[in-house]
Amino acid sequence: MNDSHLRNALLLAQSAIKLTNPNPRVGCYIEDASGRVLGQGHTQKAGGPHAEVMALRDAAEKGNSVEGATAYVTLEPCSHHGRTGPCCDALIQAGIKKVVATNLDPNPLVAGNGFARLRAAGVEVEVLAPDHPLAVQSRELNIGFFSRMIRKTPWVRMKVAASLDGTTALDNGASQWITGPDARADGHAWRARSCAILTGIGTVLADRPRLDVRLVDTPRQPHLVVVDSTLETPPDAPFFIAGRAVFIYTNGQNASKRAALEQVGATIVDMPERNPQGELTGKVDLAAMMRDLGRREINELHVEAGFKLNGSLVRAGLVDEFVVYLAPKLLGQGAGMFHIGPLTELSQGVQLEFKSTEMVGPDLRVVARVQGRDRF
Amino acid sequence: MNDSHLRNALLLAQSAIKLTNPNPRVGCYIEDASGRVLGQGHTQKAGGPHAEVMALRDAAEKGNSVEGATAYVTLEPCSHHGRTGPCCDALIQAGIKKVVATNLDPNPLVAGNGFARLRAAGVEVEVLAPDHPLAVQSRELNIGFFSRMIRKTPWVRMKVAASLDGTTALDNGASQWITGPDARADGHAWRARSCAILTGIGTVLADRPRLDVRLVDTPRQPHLVVVDSTLETPPDAPFFIAGRAVFIYTNGQNASKRAALEQVGATIVDMPERNPQGELTGKVDLAAMMRDLGRREINELHVEAGFKLNGSLVRAGLVDEFVVYLAPKLLGQGAGMFHIGPLTELSQGVQLEFKSTEMVGPDLRVVARVQGRDRF
Repeated sequence: MNDSHLRNALLLAQSAIKLTNPNPRVGCYIEDASGRVLGQGHTQKAGGPHAEVMALRDAAEKGNSVEGATAYVTLEPCSHHGRTGPCCDALIQAGIKKVVATNLDPNPLVAGNGFARLRAAGVEVEVLAPDHPLAVQSRELNIGFFSRMIRKTPWVRMKVAASLDGTTALDNGASQWITGPDARADGHAWRARSCAILTGIGTVLADRPRLDVRLVDTPRQPHLVVVDSTLETPPDAPFFIAGRAVFIYTNGQNASKRAALEQVGATIVDMPERNPQGELTGKVDLAAMMRDLGRREINELHVEAGFKLNGSLVRAGLVDEFVVYLAPKLLGQGAGMFHIGPLTELSQGVQLEFKSTEMVGPDLRVVARVQGRDRF
Repeated sequence: MNDSHLRNALLLAQSAIKLTNPNPRVGCYIEDASGRVLGQGHTQKAGGPHAEVMALRDAAEKGNSVEGATAYVTLEPCSHHGRTGPCCDALIQAGIKKVVATNLDPNPLVAGNGFARLRAAGVEVEVLAPDHPLAVQSRELNIGFFSRMIRKTPWVRMKVAASLDGTTALDNGASQWITGPDARADGHAWRARSCAILTGIGTVLADRPRLDVRLVDTPRQPHLVVVDSTLETPPDAPFFIAGRAVFIYTNGQNASKRAALEQVGATIVDMPERNPQGELTGKVDLAAMMRDLGRREINELHVEAGFKLNGSLVRAGLVDEFVVYLAPKLLGQGAGMFHIGPLTELSQGVQLEFKSTEMVGPDLRVVARVQGRDRF
């Protein structure tokens, strides 16, 4: 096997990063025995064809027969009838002789059934070892999908912009703009790959944000999730825009305020938190909210919230990854990144590992993950 | 001119980074017309020979005549009698035909006199443009020497170790160790290149630090500077070690405590601060201290202090560069990096530029400079 075919399939998959949610980003590349490319494609938007069908169509449009050819795919071909027919059947019917895949599909409806179905039809199947770099990269690209399928909750990524000394806002609230335009555009690219953006009522009221994707091109807008215990969200908030769902999680005690928000299209979800004695705390049960967002097919949840909600999510162990933009400035006293502590021992801190560091214009972007959190 | 000769000379200079203080780190590389290396050398420890003399000696030891050869040097050859005789004369006497140098010597005693002296003796002189990468790198290597010669104060570099969210110590004071052993060894390498390490009495009393170079090899220990308004430094502090000078800056009002400290070798410097009304504040005049340290031939001053003194130095505009180690953890509430603010506008922050980012073990090292501060 030549890795370059799978690498090309992975590039195709990566090109669909803003498109396929909540489906995984998958690429497919079909070659004949002499190495000639017969067809290629990637998964389309939800409800549209998967990568394998796109590649078969591409071959057909070019007049290429795929009889006896090899298909390289970045995820196990599906074996179930979801929004579309099973890709396995399409590959078998087209006469594909061999399938090379980077990973098993973690979807319990597939999870090896795709490979079994192909083998049963006489198709040769080769799967990379799980630690092969291309297998790892394919899973990374779909980390939210893998998270949702395996853990039943989204991959939660928190974006923070701060000065080098960790200040996100001055004492008087001033926070726009700590980082530069390049970092803001980069932040929109991270928004664009997410299924939904989460924020808190504090940010909604203080900044009246749109929390959509504007600074980079996108074929779709992520949904919006607001943590709003007492339903203070104004029905004229600027994030109510056509084509996006807005989910507002509340403590379930403010029925009178629901109608106005439902009228502008919001979905109100009662998710009251109870303390260990079973009493209502008046807050939203954030862990239960994550399970609910998993059920609602949210793969990657992009968090842009304030000091307090950030801290609540971190303290509850619900954040998997941090995208931190550090601006080249010192601001001193003010709001920090997360409301955590005070701790009494350094070992009580949240242990991370740095995944990447990159300059974005004059700012520095650090991607860090909670240690071990991506081993699922 | 072939850059590789000067690049080799610069490598020689860099190899002397822990050795030559308070002299600049300089390399010299002598070649004949056919490109054969005749001799090479770098500046030795203070009082010892400079690079040019070392290279001439090297050539002589190898039996190579340098008559008609070219010398490549990373700083203008000296023309004055300092601790050693002028290098210009040595080059002229040896029959060097041409000198290629990266930079003018900023020392007012040299500052072009070296080149003039060479030219007057019939030696051809070529100097790089100031923005040539090798000229820039040669100045960078000697940024403290250039600072002291031009600004009359040291290049002040502040080292900070913090969690990703900017916490340097928990509320209960716990701070050892936030970063890992690789970062600590790297920190010692930065100490080793400095002329002196500066700390505050708070750190001295809380941590009883040695503040010497232990985790990397070094031919010398940097001097120590303590900001200690009221002379609380214990005469048995672990940083009193053979072969290093200890300077303690005070507010000048604690004469009775001097004797014990002078007995263990400390130099007590009275540097009382006065407010705009001319009244004593009880503190040390930090700006005056920097001028005094310049007079004492401190090129690079390496600061490892706590939140308060760090803040005082930053607020006074006395810090040029920050070496920040960010550990992959979140610690939340606690002491930040610098006691600054509260500011009322983001534009009041200290504007930096990031010079480099590098992983050091699991930690991230960010080198940042105050904007425009290195343009002297």
